[in-house]
Amino acid sequence: MKKHRVIFQPSGRRGEVPDGTDLLDAARNLGVDIESICGGKGTCGKCKVRVEEGFFEKDSMDSRMEHLSPLTDVERKFLKPSDGPGMRLACAAHALGDVKIFVPEKSRAGKQVVRKAARELTIKIDPAVKKYFVELEKPSLHEPIKGDLEKLLEALEKNYGLKEKVKNLTIDFPVLKDLQDIIRKGNWGVTVSVWKGREIIKIEPGFVEISYGLAVDVGTTTVVGYLTDLATGKVIATESMMNPQVPYGEDVMSRITYAMTNPDGVRKMQGAIIDGLNEIIANITTNGLNAGGRNSGALSAEDAGGNEAIVDMTIVFNTAMHHIFLGFNPEHIGRSPFIPAIQHGLDIKARDLGININPGSYLYVLPIEAGFVGADNVGVLIAMEPYNLEEKVLIIDIGTNGELLLGNKDQVCSTSCATGPAFEGAQIKMGMRAAPGAIEKVRIDPATKEPLYKVIGKEEWHTHIDKIDAKGICGSGIIDAIAWMYKAGIIDKSGRFDMTAETPRVRKDHEGKPEYVLAWARETSIGADITITQGDVRALQLAKGALYAGAKLMMRKMGIEKLDKVMLAGAFGSYIDKESAMTLGMFPDCDIDNVYAVGNAAGDGARMALVSNTKRDEAEKRARWVEFVEIAIEPAFEKEFMQAMHLPHMKDSFPNLKKLIEKESPHVVIRG
Amino acid sequence: MKKHRVIFQPSGRRGEVPDGTDLLDAARNLGVDIESICGGKGTCGKCKVRVEEGFFEKDSMDSRMEHLSPLTDVERKFLKPSDGPGMRLACAAHALGDVKIFVPEKSRAGKQVVRKAARELTIKIDPAVKKYFVELEKPSLHEPIKGDLEKLLEALEKNYGLKEKVKNLTIDFPVLKDLQDIIRKGNWGVTVSVWKGREIIKIEPGFVEISYGLAVDVGTTTVVGYLTDLATGKVIATESMMNPQVPYGEDVMSRITYAMTNPDGVRKMQGAIIDGLNEIIANITTNGLNAGGRNSGALSAEDAGGNEAIVDMTIVFNTAMHHIFLGFNPEHIGRSPFIPAIQHGLDIKARDLGININPGSYLYVLPIEAGFVGADNVGVLIAMEPYNLEEKVLIIDIGTNGELLLGNKDQVCSTSCATGPAFEGAQIKMGMRAAPGAIEKVRIDPATKEPLYKVIGKEEWHTHIDKIDAKGICGSGIIDAIAWMYKAGIIDKSGRFDMTAETPRVRKDHEGKPEYVLAWARETSIGADITITQGDVRALQLAKGALYAGAKLMMRKMGIEKLDKVMLAGAFGSYIDKESAMTLGMFPDCDIDNVYAVGNAAGDGARMALVSNTKRDEAEKRARWVEFVEIAIEPAFEKEFMQAMHLPHMKDSFPNLKKLIEKESPHVVIRG
Repeated sequence: MKKHRVIFQPSGRRGEVPDGTDLLDAARNLGVDIESICGGKGTCGKCKVRVEEGFFEKDSMDSRMEHLSPLTDVERKFLKPSDGPGMRLACAAHALGDVKIFVPEKSRAGKQVVRKAARELTIKIDPAVKKYFVELEKPSLHEPIKGDLEKLLEALEKNYGLKEKVKNLTIDFPVLKDLQDIIRKGNWGVTVSVWKGREIIKIEPGFVEISYGLAVDVGTTTVVGYLTDLATGKVIATESMMNPQVPYGEDVMSRITYAMTNPDGVRKMQGAIIDGLNEIIANITTNGLNAGGRNSGALSAEDAGGNEAIVDMTIVFNTAMHHIFLGFNPEHIGRSPFIPAIQHGLDIKARDLGININPGSYLYVLPIEAGFVGADNVGVLIAMEPYNLEEKVLIIDIGTNGELLLGNKDQVCSTSCATGPAFEGAQIKMGMRAAPGAIEKVRIDPATKEPLYKVIGKEEWHTHIDKIDAKGICGSGIIDAIAWMYKAGIIDKSGRFDMTAETPRVRKDHEGKPEYVLAWARETSIGADITITQGDVRALQLAKGALYAGAKLMMRKMGIEKLDKVMLAGAFGSYIDKESAMTLGMFPDCDIDNVYAVGNAAGDGARMALVSNTKRDEAEKRARWVEFVEIAIEPAFEKEFMQAMHLPHMKDSFPNLKKLIEKESPHVVIRG
Repeated sequence: MKKHRVIFQPSGRRGEVPDGTDLLDAARNLGVDIESICGGKGTCGKCKVRVEEGFFEKDSMDSRMEHLSPLTDVERKFLKPSDGPGMRLACAAHALGDVKIFVPEKSRAGKQVVRKAARELTIKIDPAVKKYFVELEKPSLHEPIKGDLEKLLEALEKNYGLKEKVKNLTIDFPVLKDLQDIIRKGNWGVTVSVWKGREIIKIEPGFVEISYGLAVDVGTTTVVGYLTDLATGKVIATESMMNPQVPYGEDVMSRITYAMTNPDGVRKMQGAIIDGLNEIIANITTNGLNAGGRNSGALSAEDAGGNEAIVDMTIVFNTAMHHIFLGFNPEHIGRSPFIPAIQHGLDIKARDLGININPGSYLYVLPIEAGFVGADNVGVLIAMEPYNLEEKVLIIDIGTNGELLLGNKDQVCSTSCATGPAFEGAQIKMGMRAAPGAIEKVRIDPATKEPLYKVIGKEEWHTHIDKIDAKGICGSGIIDAIAWMYKAGIIDKSGRFDMTAETPRVRKDHEGKPEYVLAWARETSIGADITITQGDVRALQLAKGALYAGAKLMMRKMGIEKLDKVMLAGAFGSYIDKESAMTLGMFPDCDIDNVYAVGNAAGDGARMALVSNTKRDEAEKRARWVEFVEIAIEPAFEKEFMQAMHLPHMKDSFPNLKKLIEKESPHVVIRG
């Protein structure tokens, strides 16, 4: 088969690809990250790249383009003259000869800032894996012959009553393999790791006190691991990364589509996430254990047995990530009636998945609730425990999808809202993930319509830094921007622009559609104005409308008139400005003092399940107890949704705005 | 690293080996079977090979020898001038240059005649793996969402009450992987294979009635597999092969030594037997299922799903083969106090061992009794059921080791006798395994001292065939020969030769030691007389003395004066002449009519366990109930053993000998 050379700039990565490979595939294969929200379906227009001159000295501009397949209609739709010459969509241009490609900064998938730190949890420690030290009597020829395992089981029974608790204490076969040598290496004293009192999953010579577990939260975009001391529940180290499945599609539906349209799509994405987890495991045990060792008197990574020192693991994710991670075909949960393969939790041998912890250990996959309410929401459920509350609480977990839990000790309902990815910065013209350069906070002066903003990676607001280098706007920035555009009168209740404002910031784009300039080109690193368009406002209205309508319908169904509490969960939920969210009407009315950001509650649930059998039982029980409501099929949904798209009626005229902004950023002077 | 070319003749196999490789290793690597009873320790002298001329045209005889390491003292001990020029021991000669090696027929490890056919068993069928067909209701968006697995479990509960029987019916993880696609492929009708009512190990679309199991008996020398219809217990096909571990040592101790002296010895031998089993599985499912299909209306191998149609498997072997098969270091059972890793039975996922049956299926490894009384003896135990008998029975299982079971319903004791490999033809000058050319039956005329014999592979006794081509003598032939030498007065009660007999067959060898010529060189294919030496008689006396003393000591310990029954088990036991065995005093006195050959009882036990959960429970219970007696440490053992070495007092003078021989082989005319 014919092959062509491809070079990507500015990274300089290069390699050979088969004739006809599209540039997005070529980039993936060469480890070059190109933004692709739609997963290569040609619908997002994010993967713009420039074909470079100079690779072949004699080539003119025209002949250079002949090394790629001809321009398609899809590309013509997305490519603007302002993009400059030589631009293509990476997903639509196929290599027919050697090419040199430049990936503009706008199209580069940046390393996201991970904002999922571990908070202190108070929980009774009762881990699934416990360690027992036993000393055995040396055998002699003059007593009845007893197998080493039988002797060990007797000792465990005698010293710890293990056999009384469980009828059949078994042993993982590969552990049995080394049993005799380890017993003798430990001079007849060994430490046994027992899983749920049922199975011996590890044997170490001598006395080994400490044991580690890993709780993992696999988000659509971000993966976080918490290395935990199983005896204390303390997090020793946190390690995170971008979900390595992102190149296969930025949202859940793109990945399901990728799985359905590529013969080994599932296997590839499964391999990517498992490789990613193994990277986290390697880093967290070398860096984490060594650092932990210095601070806490724990063993060094090597002394602790490296990655195999991890003897237990729990994991949460949404249903699609769940299925792909386990190697299941996600087709069936991806289309109506959205049936998952399994709802219950799963205990899977680490070695059956190729996860590099102690090979005999189990990975506990938390149960899922329904087709679109996954193990991550069960994590939220057991972390927040709405079923133990008197007050009626609404818990909103906003990730790439929105999940709602509503109720109290009497009843809890859950639902999933198709918010679309607007909250995460996708489907927004200048949207991006929460990466350095993203505008994350916005204030707008109602008098002058002048904005203030803050970008990720800089401590101060934009007026106080020299090189601002804004690149785009992330979820919390969009919420802020649109809330403040509404407060400042730039848009009205229906989301329409007021074009009468006397400011160059409110203008029409080249297609005649209104937009608001948040940052001038000179303040950016992308050489273009960062704007909030009419389309962006609409996308946000759709997203928040879905959340609001979902919550409202559930309330009506459950006979709840007023919320006592609202909890905003998820990395995004933690960074959202709760006043902006309320201004936009993201959730039904609630006293602002009873609105809380509760952090990465899904990850907290995984951590709790890691150190508590009780929490695992609770997860299994409560996941089945929670009532899933399919709001999309409710007759009232459409009407509710249409109403919820509007922004709420504005009662006050923000007398305290100036004070608020000056309080947050005291160096800023607002005109007027 | 320097490499040399090696060619083995007559097979013509060739290849390159690293500098310094010994010829036995080179042969193993190139797939050339060379006899090596001691496993390359230089103590058996069986691996004689000839260095050939003519490989390098210019080489003289001398320079040719320079391509090997110098002759060692060990070789000088074993090599006789009569062996001819250029002979070496393969285990002692290391390649230092290119060499061409001839393997004389005497040194070739022949393909053994496998004599382990399956007999009819009468047993209540209650297999561990059962199939259930269920039809599921198609899901709709307007009912509560239910996972496919949850729906399947409910249907199994509703139709078969499976959940009532077991609290937690689980599913093998890789089975879950394909669950959704298979359910839809079967149009919501599936057949589920459930292991012990506890775990779903296979799901097939639609209705699949038939299911297969495989019972395996791994002997030190021979491996046999029985493909069985799990619903009827009927054996569909039998497939056997030499144990592929033979090149690593012919007996148990040689293999343990090999494991201890080679860093990856266990892994190599484990790989060899697993590859061997996979070969049996491949053959038995293609040949066996297709043939079975034609005869019994069963599916063809392909329709039945090939090797994955096998959903259950049981296996028996002695303790050393058990440990090596499972990848355990056999060092600890190989030396005092002979402690096994585990005594209980084991259920191991086929995929964890790399056994190519349905990957979610378990392999049931029968329990073992003690250090040298293995799962094969437990197979004998549950097949013969001495614990259900009124009569006091002695069961002798003679393989490369001798195992005894003695008792009745009140008590059964077991022991292992270090018989040495004499019964299998090793440590016997002209001994060989039961392969074509081996003398397997012998009669000797007391008057003329002329023998009659029969070789394996020919229907008639030697006087009635043209090309006799005797090659050596196997176990049953040795027993016969020595029993008849005793009956004919060639040896006396103490095993000493009577040199007064007037026959050229009784003579002294070149070292002045007496021997009896069983076959003249012209009757053989090895060009040398086949003789029974004084040393051979001594080896047999030691072996039978160990068995007899063991049985006698157990009888005394249990207060048994007289045996009601003797059962001879094992391939060898089935072919042994029970009168010869009694003549030699292999076991204590018993009415000859109550001595039975019971065939491959170990394999029968494996087959029973395959189709009966009750038999598995019985195996676990009875393996612990049987009392192991370590006879070697009994104070009386040595005295008993010394006495047992003698041949029993001869009461009769064989009036019926002529009649007996003529009855067995009516064409033979005996002189005198």
